[in-house]
Amino acid sequence: MSKSGGPVDRATLEDLAAASRILVDQGVFDSAGHFSMRHPGHPERFLMSRSLAPQMITADDIMEFDFDCNAIDARGRNGFIERYLHGEIFRARPDVLAIAHSHSPSVIAFGLSNAPMRAMYHNAAFLAAGVPVFDIREKFGTTDIVINTAAKGAALAEVLADKPVALLRAHGMVAVASSLPVAVFRAIFTVTSANIQHQALALGGPLAALDAEEGRIADLINVQTVGRAWDLWKQRVT
Amino acid sequence: MSKSGGPVDRATLEDLAAASRILVDQGVFDSAGHFSMRHPGHPERFLMSRSLAPQMITADDIMEFDFDCNAIDARGRNGFIERYLHGEIFRARPDVLAIAHSHSPSVIAFGLSNAPMRAMYHNAAFLAAGVPVFDIREKFGTTDIVINTAAKGAALAEVLADKPVALLRAHGMVAVASSLPVAVFRAIFTVTSANIQHQALALGGPLAALDAEEGRIADLINVQTVGRAWDLWKQRVT
Amino acid sequence: MSKSGGPVDRATLEDLAAASRILVDQGVFDSAGHFSMRHPGHPERFLMSRSLAPQMITADDIMEFDFDCNAIDARGRNGFIERYLHGEIFRARPDVLAIAHSHSPSVIAFGLSNAPMRAMYHNAAFLAAGVPVFDIREKFGTTDIVINTAAKGAALAEVLADKPVALLRAHGMVAVASSLPVAVFRAIFTVTSANIQHQALALGGPLAALDAEEGRIADLINVQTVGRAWDLWKQRVT
Amino acid sequence: MSKSGGPVDRATLEDLAAASRILVDQGVFDSAGHFSMRHPGHPERFLMSRSLAPQMITADDIMEFDFDCNAIDARGRNGFIERYLHGEIFRARPDVLAIAHSHSPSVIAFGLSNAPMRAMYHNAAFLAAGVPVFDIREKFGTTDIVINTAAKGAALAEVLADKPVALLRAHGMVAVASSLPVAVFRAIFTVTSANIQHQALALGGPLAALDAEEGRIADLINVQTVGRAWDLWKQRVT
Repeated sequence: MSKSGGPVDRATLEDLAAASRILVDQGVFDSAGHFSMRHPGHPERFLMSRSLAPQMITADDIMEFDFDCNAIDARGRNGFIERYLHGEIFRARPDVLAIAHSHSPSVIAFGLSNAPMRAMYHNAAFLAAGVPVFDIREKFGTTDIVINTAAKGAALAEVLADKPVALLRAHGMVAVASSLPVAVFRAIFTVTSANIQHQALALGGPLAALDAEEGRIADLINVQTVGRAWDLWKQRVT
Repeated sequence: MSKSGGPVDRATLEDLAAASRILVDQGVFDSAGHFSMRHPGHPERFLMSRSLAPQMITADDIMEFDFDCNAIDARGRNGFIERYLHGEIFRARPDVLAIAHSHSPSVIAFGLSNAPMRAMYHNAAFLAAGVPVFDIREKFGTTDIVINTAAKGAALAEVLADKPVALLRAHGMVAVASSLPVAVFRAIFTVTSANIQHQALALGGPLAALDAEEGRIADLINVQTVGRAWDLWKQRVT
Repeated sequence: MSKSGGPVDRATLEDLAAASRILVDQGVFDSAGHFSMRHPGHPERFLMSRSLAPQMITADDIMEFDFDCNAIDARGRNGFIERYLHGEIFRARPDVLAIAHSHSPSVIAFGLSNAPMRAMYHNAAFLAAGVPVFDIREKFGTTDIVINTAAKGAALAEVLADKPVALLRAHGMVAVASSLPVAVFRAIFTVTSANIQHQALALGGPLAALDAEEGRIADLINVQTVGRAWDLWKQRVT
Repeated sequence: MSKSGGPVDRATLEDLAAASRILVDQGVFDSAGHFSMRHPGHPERFLMSRSLAPQMITADDIMEFDFDCNAIDARGRNGFIERYLHGEIFRARPDVLAIAHSHSPSVIAFGLSNAPMRAMYHNAAFLAAGVPVFDIREKFGTTDIVINTAAKGAALAEVLADKPVALLRAHGMVAVASSLPVAVFRAIFTVTSANIQHQALALGGPLAALDAEEGRIADLINVQTVGRAWDLWKQRVT
């Protein structure tokens, strides 16, 4: 059995648990969705709730996993069957500290069609890097859609590549970031940008979306100022 | 008068009453909508609230009916005039344990047009079996739309056939399942899938919806994991 | 000065005040919108709140007006400037007991285009009678849109004719009924039907809406069963 | 350092802080957005919260700035980096007393396309004057979108010209008015009008929107009656 990355301070666990409740409060998670973070003391371990509706998650529900998604100290708790999505992204992306996985309706719509998501405004600037779509059929044929093996997680991580967001066809999305509040921010504003894009496309004509360079520099501001939103979001759920 | 299927334990009645309140809380029911379950002790009896707005239903409002929709022990209470919808589906579908009937706007839209509903994501996998539309005009001509006779209920059950969901033209939908939480789950995610499909269709091009086999195996996971969502939904209304 | 129709019992005044708060709670009224009823003791008087945001209206805010929209006993209170809309409909339509006037966005969209509203489902059956559009420009040229004279109210009443609902171009809608709960019901389900129609039209093809006769007989059921919804709606705001 | 415009009475500061919370409550602001007003005692000073999520703003968070956006008495507090948007509009528009800046999704959609916003109904009558779109690329090339210099603020003010509302491409909107409640009103009903226009355009055909003269005179009524809405909005957040 893998060794633990060591104890994690209570405030970090509470922030991690709050992230799930925040994404419910902000309309990104429903009765499902999960959020994880890399262990602050060990780069090859990650922290994630036991299998539980995100609105109900507290610090005591957080478990520790190695990159093979084995629980370090399960104590009878069950992890989400989709934890492989998280484990393989943490393995493939050393720059990623936190991951959100949701089933946001307006985002799923883009994963079902050929219309690419674009960055509709500065808050969604990170989308200007491009939003790849993972179709599980390409490597795995007919499945139950769930990312429940290391191979499926790795295939998703490969499609995600170096991007902040990827869509999963007929399933949902994943947003990653180098900090917990930024991953929450990206999960939220991916949804808002999708909503805007649906309306803007319906208006017709070319869309004056952010281009790649506008997106890159606008996102620097988002990362710098995320604390202002985080303070509010956290206050609303604690 | 038919004999009762016998007393039903309080927890079951509370779950049945909660199902209606859950569907209000989740935006599926408004001031109308009804939910029923087969009597756990007698396969030819079913349980359903007296005629009451679903948000107000408690365990004490549950009545018992035979398949002809006669109340076993009315004690002055009135059943919904649409209980025939439930009775005839229970009669025709021995595999069905619970039934939800709602008037969800985004779903009704599909029942008015020729665009078939499809399964937009894994949570709505059960829709991949196909979603028939019942048009009351075909057998009954001009009516008040209400399923208020055994003949109308039977005609709907015939259109539903072996499917989990059917639409009622200019009226609503019905979702059935072999357990109470799964019927609630299907009523909720039929609506979400409809919302996604409206947006995805507007994007244009072919939709990469779940195919029948993906849907069949993805729904097995839904059925296995429904407890996680049910615990949350119930907690929110009790 | 006109004579009063006499004292009105407290329960009636409370229902009338509740109607406004209900329409806020149900998302039909925002910071504006008004609801009136004919005086139960005098057919040429009507009751309506002083000018106040509908969410704040209580029984003590109800004023009495004659058909010329003069307050019977103002006691320093000001009526809505649009009370002429109500007065002239009560004058023209002896069958009408209650009137709701709202600025519901999804309904206004229909008043701006040539697409007629139709009855999308049984709850909106009353729309199957046809939904005329009042364009204030036709008789009054360029105005501030407000129904602030008897002539404008009468012109609207003429367009409404014998229908339950009319749209006001670039303004809103009016719903009338022979009872207070039914007027509330019609205001609510006109909005829901508009929402459905937007989605159904986007799906393309002909719409299998209720025809005039289906609508007529389906609405009889609505009128008979409105008490079930009314009890819920009232409980939510009291 | 500039001299202060003098002390501001507590009720004014509370109204200014409430304006931000109102715009959250009404769905116009999310975790961002800011609202400012001209100093009542000095036409070349303005008042605006320190950098904080709008839902959390109270009277104690209000700072005073000169037209170069220097804080008069910062006491360690930081202003929003976009305060230049406010400063330059106050400089260019002596008639403006209050300014709201939001990132409303349905409005942003119009700023990304060539479809001009129009006044869909009387509450949005102020839009009939025309709604210009500011594209920061035109003068500043590739940027991070933020209005963080006097030059960018001035360029926006130039595009706004004498209008009540302007859109910022891929960013948001600004609404201005000669009183605080009217600026709040305009921020709210710009969003509602955008929502209506999306639906009305989808219905097809020409839109019977308010023309310029209808809009001009209808807006006079809005300004006269805004107190009724303001009382409600303020009560909801205090």
